[in-house]
Amino acid sequence: MTDRLERQFAFLNEADRLKQILRATTLVDGSRVENSGEHSWHLALYALVLADQAGPGVSIDRVIRMLLIHDLVEIDVGDVPIHSRNGQAHGSEATQAAEARAAERIFGLLPPDLGESLRALWEEFEAAETPDARFAKSLDRVQPVMANLMSGGGTWETYGVTYDQLEARVGSRIARGAPALWDWVREKARPRFG
Amino acid sequence: MTDRLERQFAFLNEADRLKQILRATTLVDGSRVENSGEHSWHLALYALVLADQAGPGVSIDRVIRMLLIHDLVEIDVGDVPIHSRNGQAHGSEATQAAEARAAERIFGLLPPDLGESLRALWEEFEAAETPDARFAKSLDRVQPVMANLMSGGGTWETYGVTYDQLEARVGSRIARGAPALWDWVREKARPRFG
Repeated sequence: MTDRLERQFAFLNEADRLKQILRATTLVDGSRVENSGEHSWHLALYALVLADQAGPGVSIDRVIRMLLIHDLVEIDVGDVPIHSRNGQAHGSEATQAAEARAAERIFGLLPPDLGESLRALWEEFEAAETPDARFAKSLDRVQPVMANLMSGGGTWETYGVTYDQLEARVGSRIARGAPALWDWVREKARPRFG
Repeated sequence: MTDRLERQFAFLNEADRLKQILRATTLVDGSRVENSGEHSWHLALYALVLADQAGPGVSIDRVIRMLLIHDLVEIDVGDVPIHSRNGQAHGSEATQAAEARAAERIFGLLPPDLGESLRALWEEFEAAETPDARFAKSLDRVQPVMANLMSGGGTWETYGVTYDQLEARVGSRIARGAPALWDWVREKARPRFG
């Protein structure tokens, strides 16, 4: 038991570092960029509050668990903004390989049973094929859109994003897991682009 | 549906402000104080990872939901550190009344069905009587202990806390919902006090 708790707390203390990983997206009031720890909390709250946007077969509690751990690999890799390097950096092979190594190290801090189950949950999120993972990905894409809308441009300005790029990089992913949500958000976003 | 989404996002955008509420506790590395948004994420992760410390009848998914919303009232009231004003401010009648008004306002932003269910969950947490709420409270108390241990004193130094005060204000609450966890953490904390 003692050794088990040592490992559980080694992981929880390491996870604390996610609070120092900065994202490109700002807070809703634009005052500063957000970090990946508070972002993960906000997304879990999104899942709780927007549960009625999930399709059949989605377990909101599994989605919440997924979102709590989805960014932990950034402790080693950093945040890779979706619109950076003209949309090419996020999801590149190099990024994916680095994230897989990070998952190995970070989930490896835990007792093996727990580490393996959380790592499997993270891999499910990354693959974005199950209903739970698709809905979680939709929320991960929609929250920065809302921050940009509220703060008056945000990363759309930073990276000179066009409406077609938004549709391709973000809208298509939101629509995959939460189509009515994208319909609603698109109406808000469309007028901001020329 | 449109009006419902307007209200859901009014709440989620308001919740964003929790990222700007500063706590007395620092990050594990002592580099800065943490905010209540990232704290809420860390606690939800505590629940996920320390689930085996919960007693019979505890639903970890309900505990996680509770922890995601437990500090939202601080948007209006601010964080009231447990050791501040010689331990008298936290849980005072004045604080409780202010928090109840904050809950009314903040959960009131949501569609009524959702707002009422989340407010009831928050009240359950505050009352700390159900097994889920007791376990959630234990985690809320143990995380700052770990931060203080890791950062070399933290709020114990700030507020000149004695071991007896730690036992009374913190240990007794951890032990109520997670006795083995307090046994283990106490062994780490005891030698730091004279």
